Amino acid sequence: MESRTAVAHPNIAFIKYWGNRDAALRIPLNGSISMNLAGLETRTSVRFDGSLSSDQFILNDQNQTGKPLQRVSAFLNVIRNLANQAQFAQVESKNNFPLGAGIASSASAFAALALAGSQAAGLALPEKDLSRLARLGSGSAARSVPGGYVEWQAGYSDADSFACSIAGPEYWNLVDLIAIVDPLEKVTGSSEGHDLAATSPLNPLRQSGVNERLAICREAILKRDFAAFAEVVEADSHWMHAVMRTSNPPLYYWRPETEVILWQVLAWRKAGHAICATVDAGPNVHIMALENEIAWLKAELTQIQGIKDLILARPGPGAVLV
Amino acid sequence: MESRTAVAHPNIAFIKYWGNRDAALRIPLNGSISMNLAGLETRTSVRFDGSLSSDQFILNDQNQTGKPLQRVSAFLNVIRNLANQAQFAQVESKNNFPLGAGIASSASAFAALALAGSQAAGLALPEKDLSRLARLGSGSAARSVPGGYVEWQAGYSDADSFACSIAGPEYWNLVDLIAIVDPLEKVTGSSEGHDLAATSPLNPLRQSGVNERLAICREAILKRDFAAFAEVVEADSHWMHAVMRTSNPPLYYWRPETEVILWQVLAWRKAGHAICATVDAGPNVHIMALENEIAWLKAELTQIQGIKDLILARPGPGAVLV
Repeated sequence: MESRTAVAHPNIAFIKYWGNRDAALRIPLNGSISMNLAGLETRTSVRFDGSLSSDQFILNDQNQTGKPLQRVSAFLNVIRNLANQAQFAQVESKNNFPLGAGIASSASAFAALALAGSQAAGLALPEKDLSRLARLGSGSAARSVPGGYVEWQAGYSDADSFACSIAGPEYWNLVDLIAIVDPLEKVTGSSEGHDLAATSPLNPLRQSGVNERLAICREAILKRDFAAFAEVVEADSHWMHAVMRTSNPPLYYWRPETEVILWQVLAWRKAGHAICATVDAGPNVHIMALENEIAWLKAELTQIQGIKDLILARPGPGAVLV
Repeated sequence: MESRTAVAHPNIAFIKYWGNRDAALRIPLNGSISMNLAGLETRTSVRFDGSLSSDQFILNDQNQTGKPLQRVSAFLNVIRNLANQAQFAQVESKNNFPLGAGIASSASAFAALALAGSQAAGLALPEKDLSRLARLGSGSAARSVPGGYVEWQAGYSDADSFACSIAGPEYWNLVDLIAIVDPLEKVTGSSEGHDLAATSPLNPLRQSGVNERLAICREAILKRDFAAFAEVVEADSHWMHAVMRTSNPPLYYWRPETEVILWQVLAWRKAGHAICATVDAGPNVHIMALENEIAWLKAELTQIQGIKDLILARPGPGAVLV
């Protein structure tokens, strides 16, 4: 069968995904909103081949075994079931951002794999079903399937838990300036972390406010209202990390530099700048800004000790075949 | 010479004191605002006695030696210099709150000692000078000299760094409900902590906003505007702890329970309750509330795991002779 290649982008969540209603199906406890990150990408080719005696997975030119291969193989099983397909597959995947860049690759990886894999198996899934499929590989991958600004509606079952675009990448010129304070792999992966959400006494409180924050964030994007966007994005990020830090065992993703940047960004915003900050399950800070803030912001950030790298990403498209 | 006895109360800072311009004279980097805590008190008697061959310090019926005695003796030297007095003194002091209650006793201790000691030495200092004197023993003791709601103006020298009352204790019926999550002594004492403030990259940022927060807090108290008060009190507490956590070495005073309570209080306020929270250099949370919030609040707090005790304190008077 023919090889199919797809490209997908990681995304930064403005309203965060943390905790599952159903861990196996990755039905989240709450909806989430994100933006795809242009320039950063996973490019994945899949070819089903009757002559193979097992799945093969080559990541960044390295043949994978063990856990990474098992995770890909389990995902291919879903595709094989959907497509009534029995052949093993060869999967070749490359990230144009280093694994050590502190940017989670699972979202772009499973979005690209969902698209390339389903197409290689002869399926032509509509975006909604592609998003559902990607979700089974990694929750946040559901959001890397549609383009631009994206909302993942939590849903209650496999059928109704998928992401849709709120607005295309050209709709609003937000920029994500990622301040890398620690390029190493995170200590606790998201998948295990999601299971801990329920152990935090703050989890119900966080959940109880998410729908309101989703509505505010959605409207702020649609109205290009940066002030409202900034407030809700920072509040939601702080809520997630409060849940993480108070779960059992507690998850401390921040480093001192993380907090220095967060407070610095807050002070700059109070001084009138259109910037805000959000932190995923790691120590690096995503500074969201309007285009005209980038020049001075980059100059200022290079003065802050402990920032090892700055990565700039604009709103990106969804997963596409190439 | 005759014995003199004074009573003084600890205080809770709404706009915090953190970091000194002059560590020896305890000239702070910024002004601060606090409320004295009625019900909690240090009662101290001082008697200068020509027959003593050294100062004696009895705290809670235990004769003190080493560091505690040295600190008291150094403070008595200041009084002796002021009063032209050469005799050693016997100091007897009792706190009606356990040392292990998580409430700093140095403010009430040095406010009471300043008043009892200066009077015992024959001095009759005006409140301003008594506040300056108390400051030399412990910075925040300057604020336990005047009554009720108090502002310590930072000043630049020993002469102009003292506290004054903003409003008496009856002016506004705020209540401090102290949630004790850890009754043990704090790991890093405030005196050493103040020296670390300058090592945080956030210290200049915190400082740059203090005068605005002081003005907002002062006005909120005078207008009895709880909403404005709540916002500024929480912001200032968060700024201080951000500086603490990002200093070198970092100071982590919070425990997971601290954060649980802080976020819970925030959620209750968003739901319409007149409450807010502030944390001093320790893990316990001071929940400031209007009188009518106390009943339900106490009931709710007893449901939160990890709260070992609740202490209720209303606005208290300044240091008084008894």
